[in-house]
Amino acid sequence: MITVALDAMGGDRGVAATVEGAAKLSREEVDIRVLLVGDVPQMSRVLAELRYDPTRLVLVDAEGYVRMHDKPRDALDANPKCSVLEAARLVQRGEAQALVSSGHTGAAILAAADCFPMMPGIRRAALASVYPTEARHGPKGDPFALILDIGATLAVGPADLVGFALMGSAYSEVISEIRAPKVALLSNGTEPTKGTPAIVDAHRRLLGGPLNFVGNVEGLDIPRGIVDVIVCDGFLGNVVLKMLEGVSEVFMEIAREASSRSLQWRIGLSMLGGGLKELRRLTDFNVYGGAPLLGFEEVVIKAHGRSSPRAIRNALKVAAKAVRGDLIGRIRDGVAALHLDQEAS
Amino acid sequence: MITVALDAMGGDRGVAATVEGAAKLSREEVDIRVLLVGDVPQMSRVLAELRYDPTRLVLVDAEGYVRMHDKPRDALDANPKCSVLEAARLVQRGEAQALVSSGHTGAAILAAADCFPMMPGIRRAALASVYPTEARHGPKGDPFALILDIGATLAVGPADLVGFALMGSAYSEVISEIRAPKVALLSNGTEPTKGTPAIVDAHRRLLGGPLNFVGNVEGLDIPRGIVDVIVCDGFLGNVVLKMLEGVSEVFMEIAREASSRSLQWRIGLSMLGGGLKELRRLTDFNVYGGAPLLGFEEVVIKAHGRSSPRAIRNALKVAAKAVRGDLIGRIRDGVAALHLDQEAS
Repeated sequence: MITVALDAMGGDRGVAATVEGAAKLSREEVDIRVLLVGDVPQMSRVLAELRYDPTRLVLVDAEGYVRMHDKPRDALDANPKCSVLEAARLVQRGEAQALVSSGHTGAAILAAADCFPMMPGIRRAALASVYPTEARHGPKGDPFALILDIGATLAVGPADLVGFALMGSAYSEVISEIRAPKVALLSNGTEPTKGTPAIVDAHRRLLGGPLNFVGNVEGLDIPRGIVDVIVCDGFLGNVVLKMLEGVSEVFMEIAREASSRSLQWRIGLSMLGGGLKELRRLTDFNVYGGAPLLGFEEVVIKAHGRSSPRAIRNALKVAAKAVRGDLIGRIRDGVAALHLDQEAS
Repeated sequence: MITVALDAMGGDRGVAATVEGAAKLSREEVDIRVLLVGDVPQMSRVLAELRYDPTRLVLVDAEGYVRMHDKPRDALDANPKCSVLEAARLVQRGEAQALVSSGHTGAAILAAADCFPMMPGIRRAALASVYPTEARHGPKGDPFALILDIGATLAVGPADLVGFALMGSAYSEVISEIRAPKVALLSNGTEPTKGTPAIVDAHRRLLGGPLNFVGNVEGLDIPRGIVDVIVCDGFLGNVVLKMLEGVSEVFMEIAREASSRSLQWRIGLSMLGGGLKELRRLTDFNVYGGAPLLGFEEVVIKAHGRSSPRAIRNALKVAAKAVRGDLIGRIRDGVAALHLDQEAS
């Protein structure tokens, strides 16, 4: 049985979505137990309306939570018993093996940094996101790729990029079950000399290393999905990922608007059927549950603030899968193989 | 009469596309003369097959050109009489008022740097690109926005970003005829504290300045078109623009493939008519002729390497419009108003 601590407060859809997601999971999975951390009276009220397996759901009390507009450092310092810190401490004390939060992203990163040691050899954390692509790489299901960092570390050195590459590759192997994932650096050209000094140096270090490093990719290659793991600094990754979300939203808005304006459009859209679904899938990545926060000695999954119950359930399953697949151990082995620990010390 | 020097060699479609574009323009515009710079025998052969106005087309000889895979600095040094340098020198000597090239981008930037002084107060050049958006801002035609830098200057300081903002705003006013264009910095959050130190500092300098500066925008806002001018460093801009191109290509491929597979799809697509055209337009920006290279004392337009004759003709018209609208003078006035010249000296 794997136990996951879920910060049940603070998502945009509130406690209702997180509790419902956990309740859903309790009915279908036999080997995951969820500690719901938050306001117990609130959580109980939601739970009273739902079907769930009480042997796999435990309520743990916390006092308040970090709101989306709070300054995360100030909020955590002002309220050391808030839900995300209490959930992280359950993992720290060994009462749970993974942390999942759909609350404030910055607060989740700081709570992890407060409660968990960094992996030896890793100096900076990275938040990773799965996004849909055109080409099929994984062993099953829809095609997708992983991009990291998407916002945990804005400024990086070459060793940080190498660390991100390593962590992304391990995550892709354990969670997406891709053998020897193709890893690339995001740059302004495919030649090894292209990019910032940190990218050029990281490129050199990754060549001939143990990862399946295929070189640099350009912006063009992001939606194409020609690699499994794309590595960049958190500033670039944040802009890129939000732009993909923006393209998706614009696409859906135009389709919706046009379809409401015209019967002919509605008929046309319905005739497109599966083809349109494929286009839609490409521009919709709210289906993916959680973004792993990598670099700590514990498994941390950040679910999107707007997560639905289904997305929460997926994030909990991903967290359990990471524990089962020993994601942390794999990254630790990778660090040793790359000799990152000597460099970083 | 405005005279434009056109580097007629080196685009992916070769001399045929550039000469045809110039020939087209000669028949329709009365106040633009084009100096076609390149291999005269080759250009003559193309011209012999076309209708054109010989009073508005002049052939100027050059020896060879920079190929797409050449290292631009080496190629220019090895061949000082190549087409892009000869074309730039025509502008330098006052025989033409603007330079247009569809050849190697790096070579065009270096040729400009070799032949033209930088604008006072501007330390780094920026390449800008117009791209289609959802929202309508310009006075007429399809909605679009300008993004710069997209690759001329990879690493920037705050004064460079302020300079890019100024140049992009002036270009948007003169060419797109937008009054007081909305200018924004691209960052990982809208708050003034978000972004790299250079962005945070540039934000502070732009606030309360003479431009219509609206703050930071995020990746989400790029396709939405909520501002007219988006400012970023050349590394980020390059990745972002190529990603927009990639999304476009993936979209078109899927539509093409599905439509070839199924009659129902073909009928569905044809019923969508104008709505589909709108979606397509949003993901297709090869319609826009040229990317201005800003920061020099002369007008320079870089046409896309894959430019069609129509795109070449558009780039020539944009160059002439920039001269007529005194783009350079407007930027010079803007520099004075922002006191960038003191800072930079």
